[in-house]
Amino acid sequence: MAEAVEFSKSPAEVLRVGSGFSLENVDPASTPGYRGVKADGQGLLVAQDARLKELQEKLFAEGKFGSTKRLLLILQAMDTAGKGGIVSHVVGAMDPQGVQLSAFKAPSDEEKSHDFLWRIEKQVPDVGMVGVFDRSHYEDVLIHRVHAWADADELERRYAAINDFEARLAEQGTTIVKVMLNISQDEQKKRLLARLDDPSKHWKYSRTDLAERAFWPDYMDAYNTAFGKTSTDIAPWHVVPANRKWYARIAVQQLLLDALEGMSLEWPKADFDVAAERALVQAS
Amino acid sequence: MAEAVEFSKSPAEVLRVGSGFSLENVDPASTPGYRGVKADGQGLLVAQDARLKELQEKLFAEGKFGSTKRLLLILQAMDTAGKGGIVSHVVGAMDPQGVQLSAFKAPSDEEKSHDFLWRIEKQVPDVGMVGVFDRSHYEDVLIHRVHAWADADELERRYAAINDFEARLAEQGTTIVKVMLNISQDEQKKRLLARLDDPSKHWKYSRTDLAERAFWPDYMDAYNTAFGKTSTDIAPWHVVPANRKWYARIAVQQLLLDALEGMSLEWPKADFDVAAERALVQAS
Repeated sequence: MAEAVEFSKSPAEVLRVGSGFSLENVDPASTPGYRGVKADGQGLLVAQDARLKELQEKLFAEGKFGSTKRLLLILQAMDTAGKGGIVSHVVGAMDPQGVQLSAFKAPSDEEKSHDFLWRIEKQVPDVGMVGVFDRSHYEDVLIHRVHAWADADELERRYAAINDFEARLAEQGTTIVKVMLNISQDEQKKRLLARLDDPSKHWKYSRTDLAERAFWPDYMDAYNTAFGKTSTDIAPWHVVPANRKWYARIAVQQLLLDALEGMSLEWPKADFDVAAERALVQAS
Repeated sequence: MAEAVEFSKSPAEVLRVGSGFSLENVDPASTPGYRGVKADGQGLLVAQDARLKELQEKLFAEGKFGSTKRLLLILQAMDTAGKGGIVSHVVGAMDPQGVQLSAFKAPSDEEKSHDFLWRIEKQVPDVGMVGVFDRSHYEDVLIHRVHAWADADELERRYAAINDFEARLAEQGTTIVKVMLNISQDEQKKRLLARLDDPSKHWKYSRTDLAERAFWPDYMDAYNTAFGKTSTDIAPWHVVPANRKWYARIAVQQLLLDALEGMSLEWPKADFDVAAERALVQAS
């Protein structure tokens, strides 16, 4: 196999939301930091699976021996942007035993009776685990802002509560990777039509997706505001251009790899006498 | 790619525990129903991934539209037999969004204060999901029998309770696949030594594995008894020879494929007017 084409610039840097960021300045069809084409990207995705899996196993192993480290990937996006594909094709390469996936749908009556972070807190990853949030507490400052289900004061309270919550997670050993998959409105139309054209995808089509689509500019505003309020040093946002699915996948994969590489993971040292244990097994 | 070598006889038939079954008559190094060699088996595993994933997605899709179907894979085995490899290499090919994995370790104090099925019931798969039990309620008639933590009457109560429980799951739409991965005592020794010889695997080595190994014949007795009591028509046991990891993986994969094929899965029909919806999206 030919050598995989790697990123020329780190997605963690080029996709990071800094001051002055605005979604309107980002091209959802672009491939920042990557010079390869689709086939290159697909090759890279497969080529890095083993490394991703090894790092995740080290994280898991450390968790069995007293480490407090864990990883949390937060995925937000407009409908059809490809969250499911990230879970299936990027997260899916890791060992299911080390992954905790939480899909946050519309809250139940019980969940609604509590603060918005109540149901989130219950799903934070255990030590050694990779947590994945398919939607998250950010729904409470996105769809809630778009439909004015929360007023300005309440939204401010939530941004602050989110920053406190994420800071606390970080203090507990959690590395947080926040990703917004950024598709264009035209691309969403194509994907909705594609779902309608394929009977095996009809079950994925929801009429509420079309209703929310009508609020596209309001959603972009809500995202921009949320980025400004919650892209912190300990939990920065990354906006991943997602019109090209192959690019979004390698970008998120690389964000996960970089996050794991930054955690200084090591195989736990044996807490027993290996030679003595070997003799016991041999004699058994 | 050359055509994959398929099973000549169905694992669901040749590996099924029937009357008169005894573990001592099974060669853990054999490959029942399969004439291929290791490379063939590895090729088959990969070749069937897409089919497994498609069936699992259909199950998931049906679950969103009122079906009550679900699949439950129960894995039991002696230590090092390869449960983790099944989860990683067979289950791992399915979409993480459709899989509920539960690893049952030694019960907590709260769990111990309840009936043995209490913690199990909480983990049964939701509609549309593939549940995987890495160990299960069978621990309560295996290790409990070996160490006499339960007396003969209590064990009888548990076998009956298990059969009632599994019958109830089946009535609720659950297809149950019960698998015992069968390695030889010599093979376990090799695998324990291999863990000790590889520092990246020391974290997987547990001294209690060696302690339990000393009770090998008692475990085989406990398994044989459990098979006799709980290999029912609605939830038969399958004993999968597991000295050859590649064989165990394709055998379990095939058991899952057969189970899913037997569930008459269909893509849900659209509950909306496709053409009308298409026009709305187009105009949006």
